[in-house]
Amino acid sequence: MYTKGKILVTGGAGFVGSHVVLELIKSGYPVVVLDNFANCQILPENQKPSSIKIVESMTDETVIFYNVDITERLQLINVFQEHDIEVVIHLAALRYIGESKALPVDYYHTNITGSCTLFQVMTEFKVKHLIFSSTSNVYGTPDYLPINESHPTGLQCRSPYERSKYLVEEILKDVCHSDEEWKVIALRYFTPSGAHEWGLLGEDTIKSPNSLFAHIAEVAMGARGELCIPCSKDQEQSGFIRDYTHVMDLATGHKNALMKLDDLRGWAAYNLGTGRAYSCVEVIDTFAKLSGKPIKYRLKPAPGVSSIEVIADTSLAQQELKWTAFKGIEDICRDTWNWYCNKHNTLK
Amino acid sequence: MYTKGKILVTGGAGFVGSHVVLELIKSGYPVVVLDNFANCQILPENQKPSSIKIVESMTDETVIFYNVDITERLQLINVFQEHDIEVVIHLAALRYIGESKALPVDYYHTNITGSCTLFQVMTEFKVKHLIFSSTSNVYGTPDYLPINESHPTGLQCRSPYERSKYLVEEILKDVCHSDEEWKVIALRYFTPSGAHEWGLLGEDTIKSPNSLFAHIAEVAMGARGELCIPCSKDQEQSGFIRDYTHVMDLATGHKNALMKLDDLRGWAAYNLGTGRAYSCVEVIDTFAKLSGKPIKYRLKPAPGVSSIEVIADTSLAQQELKWTAFKGIEDICRDTWNWYCNKHNTLK
Repeated sequence: MYTKGKILVTGGAGFVGSHVVLELIKSGYPVVVLDNFANCQILPENQKPSSIKIVESMTDETVIFYNVDITERLQLINVFQEHDIEVVIHLAALRYIGESKALPVDYYHTNITGSCTLFQVMTEFKVKHLIFSSTSNVYGTPDYLPINESHPTGLQCRSPYERSKYLVEEILKDVCHSDEEWKVIALRYFTPSGAHEWGLLGEDTIKSPNSLFAHIAEVAMGARGELCIPCSKDQEQSGFIRDYTHVMDLATGHKNALMKLDDLRGWAAYNLGTGRAYSCVEVIDTFAKLSGKPIKYRLKPAPGVSSIEVIADTSLAQQELKWTAFKGIEDICRDTWNWYCNKHNTLK
Repeated sequence: MYTKGKILVTGGAGFVGSHVVLELIKSGYPVVVLDNFANCQILPENQKPSSIKIVESMTDETVIFYNVDITERLQLINVFQEHDIEVVIHLAALRYIGESKALPVDYYHTNITGSCTLFQVMTEFKVKHLIFSSTSNVYGTPDYLPINESHPTGLQCRSPYERSKYLVEEILKDVCHSDEEWKVIALRYFTPSGAHEWGLLGEDTIKSPNSLFAHIAEVAMGARGELCIPCSKDQEQSGFIRDYTHVMDLATGHKNALMKLDDLRGWAAYNLGTGRAYSCVEVIDTFAKLSGKPIKYRLKPAPGVSSIEVIADTSLAQQELKWTAFKGIEDICRDTWNWYCNKHNTLK
């Protein structure tokens, strides 16, 4: 039973994290945020990251914030000593698939060492309720569609990033198995996308050059001439196909997961997706229609590009978390465009 | 090409580690040992552990030793700054299957956080040659016997200990994939057993109450009345069946792996086993014969005990490491008994 202790959000200044923090504060939860800006280009000294400042301005609340690296045990201990933490929402991670193949040691260090260090400090402070930010990538290449939570995980992870998320899930299963006081929910996100509808909070894409939406928005703004999408031979007409989930729906999912912790025993994993998938071409067409801008693009068959299609079966989240994605691809396109225009002070 | 830089042995004061250090020193390699005595009961302050002192007395050499926890980055950096390390033999780990089920966070922290921290420091110092102490347990319940290195790993690991070893192997594969300067050999040990033949160096069994040989030796010495062995229904006559590998053979395996690093590209894993398996009853009979002591025992069918049989296919190690186990179950029993008698100052 949640008793109004504080919710610690690791990685709370990041894309999903900042939207989760916003949603929690709006719902009246006392939140403590920590982040070390690993996924941002600019590392401010002794000041709050811009995403957190935006959350503060949107909510008229002051956010308790720590610039802490989750691999640094003493820094974590300090936070747990200063606050009565009841639940941890653990989103802090390095998160770019391509980068992870080049820097596996850094990825495993942050994502696994960091998680293990956090779990050890939680154990010390007897904080045993956790919501873990996982990903549909733990399923690897799907054996069937839509993918439900019983689908095998880990077998076909194609990058250190994906494997690190799978490994942390395995670690958490063992933790729950060893001590029945632990309650852990892994939320497996299906392609987080979009932005808050006000256009003030969204994804910092400086380090995310491969985001489809970032590319589309840049073409729409005229910052990039043409969008070139590598694809497999069998997706030459459509481009890759994904289940895109609006970041505000994901934020709600975390709030529902918090409530679910009350009656949970041990470990559970839930898909957070929409159950509908869109091809690149469908996404581009929708974006063009909603922004009123032409999006020039080219699909380019390239060796080594897989034709994986990903669609979530979300029935378990519906039943047990009482959660459904309310926002669709049109909302995602509209809110992304709105966020880009605002960020660049451009008139729509 | 090995150029006579130093060999850093993590966990070098432990059971397998101390025998590896002995073998390396006898072969003229310059060795640096680090250990934090996590698997020993007594933690000496500012002094060398007894296993290292014994190695020194057996070799007439001074061993460079650091009391270092591999999860502590700054302690590791200090060692790499003080010595020109060329290869790391990484044995430091928590290693008791039963304990790992009760303390998964500690196990993942030491075995994974520790390994990731080590790999990160190695990368910083451009030390990219590694021999990793792995285990036949990464195969889980074997699909076929004897088990070769192509057998799937990780799928059926039954404990956090086993899973942590599997996970580190996966991490190392990704590391090799990301940077072709890395050369990594995982040695998968099949039930390390025995002791050095002089009876001076062997396993500290204080924290290993489930070791079959420790129990047998205690019964033989009269410290324990009867040996009670839990078994599955189908192994009621024999007890469990394992491929026991003499620790001095394992030590030679590490030396051969060091030489193999010269022509290795990337990642390789080798089974270190004998290719012959023995049941509990066979082991007990052999021990009784060689010690001249009666060993009273009872096989007790118990629920949840699996009837896994484990036998190594060692042909790859023979071909590529030029390694074969020379010592058999009689050597293991004789050397174990000799070690126990010496340790307890008992006349045989």
